[in-house]
Amino acid sequence: MGKGTLLYAQSGGVTAVINATAGAVIQAARARKVKVLAARNGILGALREDLVDTSKESAAAIRALAHTPGGAFGSCRYKLKSLEQDAAKYARVLEVIKAHDVRWFLYNGGNDSADTALKLSQLAAASGYPLTCVGVPKTVDNDLVVTDCCPGFGSAAKYTAVSVAEAALDVEAMADTSTKVFVYEVMGRHAGWLAAAAGLAGQGKDAAPHIILFPEVAYDEAAFLAKVKTTVARVGHCVVVVSEGIRHADGRFVADAGGGKDAFGHSQLGGVGPLLAATVKDKLGLKVHWTVPDYLQRSARHLASKTDLAHAQAVGKAAVEYALKGLNGVMPAIVRLADKPYRWKVAPAPLSDIANHEKKMPKGFIDASGFGITPACRRYLEPLVRGEAPPPYGPDGLPKYVRLKLSAVPKKLPAFAG
Amino acid sequence: MGKGTLLYAQSGGVTAVINATAGAVIQAARARKVKVLAARNGILGALREDLVDTSKESAAAIRALAHTPGGAFGSCRYKLKSLEQDAAKYARVLEVIKAHDVRWFLYNGGNDSADTALKLSQLAAASGYPLTCVGVPKTVDNDLVVTDCCPGFGSAAKYTAVSVAEAALDVEAMADTSTKVFVYEVMGRHAGWLAAAAGLAGQGKDAAPHIILFPEVAYDEAAFLAKVKTTVARVGHCVVVVSEGIRHADGRFVADAGGGKDAFGHSQLGGVGPLLAATVKDKLGLKVHWTVPDYLQRSARHLASKTDLAHAQAVGKAAVEYALKGLNGVMPAIVRLADKPYRWKVAPAPLSDIANHEKKMPKGFIDASGFGITPACRRYLEPLVRGEAPPPYGPDGLPKYVRLKLSAVPKKLPAFAG
Repeated sequence: MGKGTLLYAQSGGVTAVINATAGAVIQAARARKVKVLAARNGILGALREDLVDTSKESAAAIRALAHTPGGAFGSCRYKLKSLEQDAAKYARVLEVIKAHDVRWFLYNGGNDSADTALKLSQLAAASGYPLTCVGVPKTVDNDLVVTDCCPGFGSAAKYTAVSVAEAALDVEAMADTSTKVFVYEVMGRHAGWLAAAAGLAGQGKDAAPHIILFPEVAYDEAAFLAKVKTTVARVGHCVVVVSEGIRHADGRFVADAGGGKDAFGHSQLGGVGPLLAATVKDKLGLKVHWTVPDYLQRSARHLASKTDLAHAQAVGKAAVEYALKGLNGVMPAIVRLADKPYRWKVAPAPLSDIANHEKKMPKGFIDASGFGITPACRRYLEPLVRGEAPPPYGPDGLPKYVRLKLSAVPKKLPAFAG
Repeated sequence: MGKGTLLYAQSGGVTAVINATAGAVIQAARARKVKVLAARNGILGALREDLVDTSKESAAAIRALAHTPGGAFGSCRYKLKSLEQDAAKYARVLEVIKAHDVRWFLYNGGNDSADTALKLSQLAAASGYPLTCVGVPKTVDNDLVVTDCCPGFGSAAKYTAVSVAEAALDVEAMADTSTKVFVYEVMGRHAGWLAAAAGLAGQGKDAAPHIILFPEVAYDEAAFLAKVKTTVARVGHCVVVVSEGIRHADGRFVADAGGGKDAFGHSQLGGVGPLLAATVKDKLGLKVHWTVPDYLQRSARHLASKTDLAHAQAVGKAAVEYALKGLNGVMPAIVRLADKPYRWKVAPAPLSDIANHEKKMPKGFIDASGFGITPACRRYLEPLVRGEAPPPYGPDGLPKYVRLKLSAVPKKLPAFAG
């Protein structure tokens, strides 16, 4: 095998620690004297031959990726279809890969990216080009199968648990004369992992959050309002955590009612959080506040989980090792060895088992009321939010997040006309 | 003067560091062998004779108040009117104060609380009862006059600047194929201090936040949209920070359009953030995300400013010193001695100068475009967000926030019938 280069790209929604994975990939490759190119904006960078030469970045800058949120090379929401439907695009990506002597391709993303990496490995094999493709897990949604958890989730989970705990103290202090119900909307269109993480904020019957609404449980307005009412009567206030993806029994997203158009045809970009808040106000006459942290929950590197950071770096390092060993079409998965004390390792898993699948919360993680988490869920989640890994701060009081040079690799091919 | 006790109470919206002030008050009083009672839920606790004996709390618990957000004794949104209008209530508060041998009353709040403390001191003096009343500043809104800044603001400002910086990295990474415009709504109904703090997130022409909408500047939709459009064209994305209190040129709150009822009479609890997001989507056709952190911004003790924490503790300690010296009707104000290196001290200021006034941003803090902050504003804000003071974390990955015993003081009076 010739010298060859390694191509790395980031895909899908970014996380607080995806750059930590990138940093670990580059460090591991540098240690093996392997050159790393990065595609800008995920697979689009490969299509456009928009590549970055990471060898132009200093060792200090690469180290700083470990504490910098966002996606340093740019990410994308762009999914290639089947090899047949998007034949020209796959062929183009392979052409760019060949032109830059890429022998190893690492795609850092969720299950769509696993699918892309798998297809590309199949195409390369069919065309006789020696390319090893490795998927690298990442998603705050924690919905990849096979792996015990996904890098990015632990930090978003920690952010959620801490923010709910803090806001709950605020609401409790104000409830006598002001806000009685607080609604916190978390990400998770299909799986309630982040909603469940909010459950870490408190233990015991009357500890916040008092109500968690999971996408796995059909939304029942009457049952929800009854629970709010009794909680306020007993505790004095009520903290509600709602997943953006909750649905009615018939499958319709609850949020869609608030996300339509008003009578004038103007967009109503309310999420499910403000919608439930309005319901509580109208039906129960209680003073309510709500929050939608949105991107803050997946970019809050300042509150990253140390465990999550370790996972993110470990899968980056392992991905390079697998690639250089020629383990094609795999992903480094996190394997849990023990809950308490928490022990884990990384092991290769076939991309074909992961691509296009989605892991929901196990039934045993939601309690009988449907509004809370079980001890088994807590046992699973707790190690993932454990430990702090704050970024360094500057004299201006802000974290010292790095901005890379992103030095462009000269193009060798004509522009893609696809 | 007899032995006497000191009564402390918290008022208005809580902050990340108001409990640090409470802890400093109790520690300073304990050092002088003065007993401290706390009223539950602010002045309401005095009206209801609902008092807590802080001597039942351990030294460790009182120390832990320094890193615990919320309001440990409960706060209130409840303003006493004039001495004439609320004569019976003031008389009752004085009766409770006398019954518990209270000689010093410390009210920790904003300008309403300063007003209450001032009126109570006047009433006591008129009735010949020796009571020293001291206001203790607190508000994330930073809108108290005389004092250079308000404890609570620096931490909310740091939270805002860091969160905007982090979310901006997220948006930048996604902008090529996804979100192009991000709208971040901050608190500040009348003054743009927290909106201005977002400006600390970036420096330079194209650094986020690209647009700040202040309550001090009339909202001009056409100018706003034009600026969003040119920013996206030049930078690729646009981060907008909007104060909840922005108004149209005629004085109407912009948020009111989104906070009304829909065609069915249901409440629309959208803030100005989602409203502007919808405007950008409809008028410019750009993909947009928005966040409303709401209470998170004022309860995020995990991201407190070390400077702010020092201020909060200093005003608590000074308030006790002033009270015991008999400095009646004053508030410890923070006096800035120098910007760089930042130096400050605490000095007493008359409550009569502070009560019912509101400090807006100086004209010189908003740049000529109306969408950004000036170097003078940055010079003012930067020291206030400087330094980190993280809470201790437990093995469960969550901050170790304290919950007090709140041991009730036996009532001596019949219930208040007012």
